[in-house]
Amino acid sequence: MDAPKEYTHKYFLTAGECNAQQQMPITLIAQRVIEVATEHANILGVGYADLIKSNVGWVLSRLSIEMTRYPKMNEEYSLTTWIEGFNRLYSERNMEVQDGKGETIGYVRSIWVAIDMETRRPSDLTSISWLAETISDRPCPIAKQSRLMPVNAEEATLSAQHRFKVSDIDFNRHVNSVRYMDAFLNQWDLEHFDNNNIARFEIQYLRETYFGDKAHIITKCTENIAETEILVNETANCRAKIEFTSKN
Amino acid sequence: MDAPKEYTHKYFLTAGECNAQQQMPITLIAQRVIEVATEHANILGVGYADLIKSNVGWVLSRLSIEMTRYPKMNEEYSLTTWIEGFNRLYSERNMEVQDGKGETIGYVRSIWVAIDMETRRPSDLTSISWLAETISDRPCPIAKQSRLMPVNAEEATLSAQHRFKVSDIDFNRHVNSVRYMDAFLNQWDLEHFDNNNIARFEIQYLRETYFGDKAHIITKCTENIAETEILVNETANCRAKIEFTSKN
Repeated sequence: MDAPKEYTHKYFLTAGECNAQQQMPITLIAQRVIEVATEHANILGVGYADLIKSNVGWVLSRLSIEMTRYPKMNEEYSLTTWIEGFNRLYSERNMEVQDGKGETIGYVRSIWVAIDMETRRPSDLTSISWLAETISDRPCPIAKQSRLMPVNAEEATLSAQHRFKVSDIDFNRHVNSVRYMDAFLNQWDLEHFDNNNIARFEIQYLRETYFGDKAHIITKCTENIAETEILVNETANCRAKIEFTSKN
Repeated sequence: MDAPKEYTHKYFLTAGECNAQQQMPITLIAQRVIEVATEHANILGVGYADLIKSNVGWVLSRLSIEMTRYPKMNEEYSLTTWIEGFNRLYSERNMEVQDGKGETIGYVRSIWVAIDMETRRPSDLTSISWLAETISDRPCPIAKQSRLMPVNAEEATLSAQHRFKVSDIDFNRHVNSVRYMDAFLNQWDLEHFDNNNIARFEIQYLRETYFGDKAHIITKCTENIAETEILVNETANCRAKIEFTSKN
């Protein structure tokens, strides 16, 4: 089979997609990452339709996005993806984000775990071990994701409650991966994002969250770093680490 | 100038864009309507960049969407738009939604008001009165929008509070038009949308809403019709009327 090691999708940022800073929201970058990963997997013959025959599916486990600048309103941008690593349990997929002029403005690292679609437990990717042949040595010059540690509730500097609603639920009937990011970022006010850019956003999905789940979001800010987690019934379902840089 | 009376944009519905029913959410249809209206206005020379020279901008005032069915996951669809009416104060823009096979699956009516971008008060479109020449007689066989009436709080069958957060705010620093729809639809649970389709959604934007505004959402359900409004400081900022049809 023809297995292109790299895949690129070009986009245009519409006004309606922009945030209050008239830039591409990092949540939309995450949405595009999931889209582009899905498209490349389909081309490689390891997409949803292929794996479901063995009752296996990909689940996004970790995502790290590092941006030097964000696409602006009415600007073109592109995502190029490739596989950096692959084993029996997961695949490491990277991406480069370019602006309309072809300048690199960010990189992405993601880890996709194979699960059994019925038991929702880790599955085995041995049957598609040939995928290792599509590994690319294209460099991804951002740090690998660290293991995110629990936030000590007593040290939390921000805290909020959120009940997940209809608009938060995806086609799998779980909370949409992107909505966790919204829940984290909604801890701050508009002014914070007027004055700070998100330089790096790391997120780790631990447990699935469902319609009606009541989340407790706690955040510990130390200088320009925020460590944050979403607890449901006092168990962490998702953790993130956000690094801000001042615009001034 | 060359002024095409109709404009079509084709799309593909990705998995990540779908709702829990594995269909296109009506909120995404609204987002596409705004996008396609903007693109056609740009082509006609009456887009944001053109009107801002006279300090004028378009604001979506009313939107009615009627769907016989919704695009499914991985399905193509398109929106075709044309202008039905135009006067000194507003323009009436319609759309037809087709599936990948070219079958009509829905229609849209929208009303766009011209406002002075500084005072945020109604402006005058006399300077672009030539736009009337682009009016198309293509039929739009759905009812025009009725004037939506206040909901009597004592008759409300559903009620919720929502504080608008960072993720709700658009590039104009107001609540995104689509987020009001989310706030209305989040009054119900997942099961309601498993059992019912939205046959018609009418929304009327009355006043701008801002970051941090605390909304009181009240809904009165009578058989398959829901009349609902978003109050901020006891004043209605937005009203909607939603008609459901049972899937059974």
